[in-house]
Amino acid sequence: MRRGGMVIGIVAPASRLEPALAERTQEIARRLYPDRALELRFHPQCFLSAGHFAGDDDTRARAFLEVANDENVDAVWFARGGYGSGRLSERVLAGLTAGAGGKTYLGYSDAGALLAALYTRGFQWLAHGPVPADLRREGGEAAVKRALAFLLDRAPEALEPTVSAAVPTAAFNITVLSHLVGTPWQPDLTGHVLMLEEVSEQMYRIDRALMHITGNPAIRRVAGIRLGRCSAIPPNEPDFGQTAEEVVRHWCEASGIPYLGPADIGHDIDNKVVPFGPLRPT
Amino acid sequence: MRRGGMVIGIVAPASRLEPALAERTQEIARRLYPDRALELRFHPQCFLSAGHFAGDDDTRARAFLEVANDENVDAVWFARGGYGSGRLSERVLAGLTAGAGGKTYLGYSDAGALLAALYTRGFQWLAHGPVPADLRREGGEAAVKRALAFLLDRAPEALEPTVSAAVPTAAFNITVLSHLVGTPWQPDLTGHVLMLEEVSEQMYRIDRALMHITGNPAIRRVAGIRLGRCSAIPPNEPDFGQTAEEVVRHWCEASGIPYLGPADIGHDIDNKVVPFGPLRPT
Repeated sequence: MRRGGMVIGIVAPASRLEPALAERTQEIARRLYPDRALELRFHPQCFLSAGHFAGDDDTRARAFLEVANDENVDAVWFARGGYGSGRLSERVLAGLTAGAGGKTYLGYSDAGALLAALYTRGFQWLAHGPVPADLRREGGEAAVKRALAFLLDRAPEALEPTVSAAVPTAAFNITVLSHLVGTPWQPDLTGHVLMLEEVSEQMYRIDRALMHITGNPAIRRVAGIRLGRCSAIPPNEPDFGQTAEEVVRHWCEASGIPYLGPADIGHDIDNKVVPFGPLRPT
Repeated sequence: MRRGGMVIGIVAPASRLEPALAERTQEIARRLYPDRALELRFHPQCFLSAGHFAGDDDTRARAFLEVANDENVDAVWFARGGYGSGRLSERVLAGLTAGAGGKTYLGYSDAGALLAALYTRGFQWLAHGPVPADLRREGGEAAVKRALAFLLDRAPEALEPTVSAAVPTAAFNITVLSHLVGTPWQPDLTGHVLMLEEVSEQMYRIDRALMHITGNPAIRRVAGIRLGRCSAIPPNEPDFGQTAEEVVRHWCEASGIPYLGPADIGHDIDNKVVPFGPLRPT
């Protein structure tokens, strides 16, 4: 990162961002950092629409690579989740150039699919954390403020409180990680504390995805699992009879993975930043 | 199978079966085969209830093994799908004895998780096909009749029409197969025609699961994919803009897997029987 200033490039490899949210993000950045040479560059691709996605696969992959490979950009910020990042993994990995490796990448939820793919390539500055689309949540400014504090200053208060330089971490949405298992884009999480969170999935689906994840031999090499918040869980028919924590504890016990307690992450405004790997000195 | 007669053991490793459906299955079997020494043994476990499941994991695994290992039982018929079979894979595989290998196993949907696990052990008489719970569908008797015709007589008309002795096949629910990828229970489908079907999943979920399945290097060794019916697809927000067939064609092309056309399977009364492996002489 250039001292004092920063260019943050924003792309949307999954779903589309409403332009009003980009404007609000700009306003917040100007208000919080009036004296910093901070530039938020929303790539026009963020506002495209092609069915479920913010533009077709080629368009989204090209936009991502333009920003990632640009040596004048210090950080890549995912505009939002949704669905579609993983569809780009193969072409994104094929198109990365030298400029892409040194910068920070921040996002969560569906963005985890691309963060995972980049982590398989040894990228050192990947992080789970809030995105501009969190402004749709009531009080969402707190989330965006936290993301900017991390991107600009690696502010310790932006971090999930158990994150440290001593133990590598990673954070994923449960469903997104389940869909990475057994693919070339599944990252090696040996020795990592794996933090998991979920939103809007029935409990039997959470159980099934955790059965899947913890059944994978490579995942069994993590140092342990921490459970973030599982929110907006639709009713199960019949009632599942277990909380998300009970479900995670069950699969940790069945697979021999230590359960380490809660993680301060989730699809909400309190979602904290979790670096992929150990916390590195800036 | 003992000539002329047959004992079919029915268990429910996932969700519970309503007792009335067991009675109706018995009536249908008596009516269709009045002169055959056919016995349908519904294990009492089918009717248990523990939260989401037909009894807890230990109870369901024990019941499955009792029936599978019983040398006086010729075929194991899954009572229904739902969710929960895969939770038993580890203990079922650990508890199988010599009597389990020679008999037929028939089920579909969630049952695919256990069929897959048994296929990793080289079981030769596994098949995707209708279950007693299909009687809940209007006209469901046709499905149950087809299952019995297969179990008793390997009736050719019960089979998916492209099934042959020349090419090995396998059939899975898309979501169930996605949750097997990268686990020890993922079967080797090299050279198989892989038939897939889905029910009650939004199109973006179907797309995501197919991205996952076709991203797995071992799955890329199948001879090709055939698409069964994807039914009761809830609306996508925004509209996904592609049919299930277009989605499958996309992922086949992206992964280099030949797309071979439709398969006559699905969550409906027309669901045909698909053996795992080549069609074997009885």
